[in-house]
Amino acid sequence: MAKIEVYVTYKDSILDPQGQAVQKAAAKLGFDQISGVRIGKYFEIEVTGDVASAQEQVEKLSNELLANPNMETYRVEVSE
Amino acid sequence: MAKIEVYVTYKDSILDPQGQAVQKAAAKLGFDQISGVRIGKYFEIEVTGDVASAQEQVEKLSNELLANPNMETYRVEVSE
Repeated sequence: MAKIEVYVTYKDSILDPQGQAVQKAAAKLGFDQISGVRIGKYFEIEVTGDVASAQEQVEKLSNELLANPNMETYRVEVSE
Repeated sequence: MAKIEVYVTYKDSILDPQGQAVQKAAAKLGFDQISGVRIGKYFEIEVTGDVASAQEQVEKLSNELLANPNMETYRVEVSE
């Protein structure tokens, strides 16, 4: 059983108001070294069988289901 | 300017219905190697100044604002 991680983030050209809100809240709480926050989604996916073909399946899944290719990009990493 | 990444996930003892829904959807779409999905949040945080003290600030921020310590755990990684 292998584990594959997927990170989905907004493209740089897309505004991230939720991240901006976190950044402002951090500033209010006194965290003065935090200059920018962007929020994304993180998927831990357990796969069975051959890892290379599982990675292909996860790439396809990310494109079809996990990320919205119009606004988001994703990164797939095999972790174990 | 350094970048620090924070991963927030549910504790293993906490059910993740959203992840289960994604896993079922993946199975319906024919992805037969995907046996489990857990969903978390991912934060890309830009920090200024000394990296060690910035990392401390991010750890505190994660505990106070980004994660709910009752249900979630977090991991902080300095990436650049």
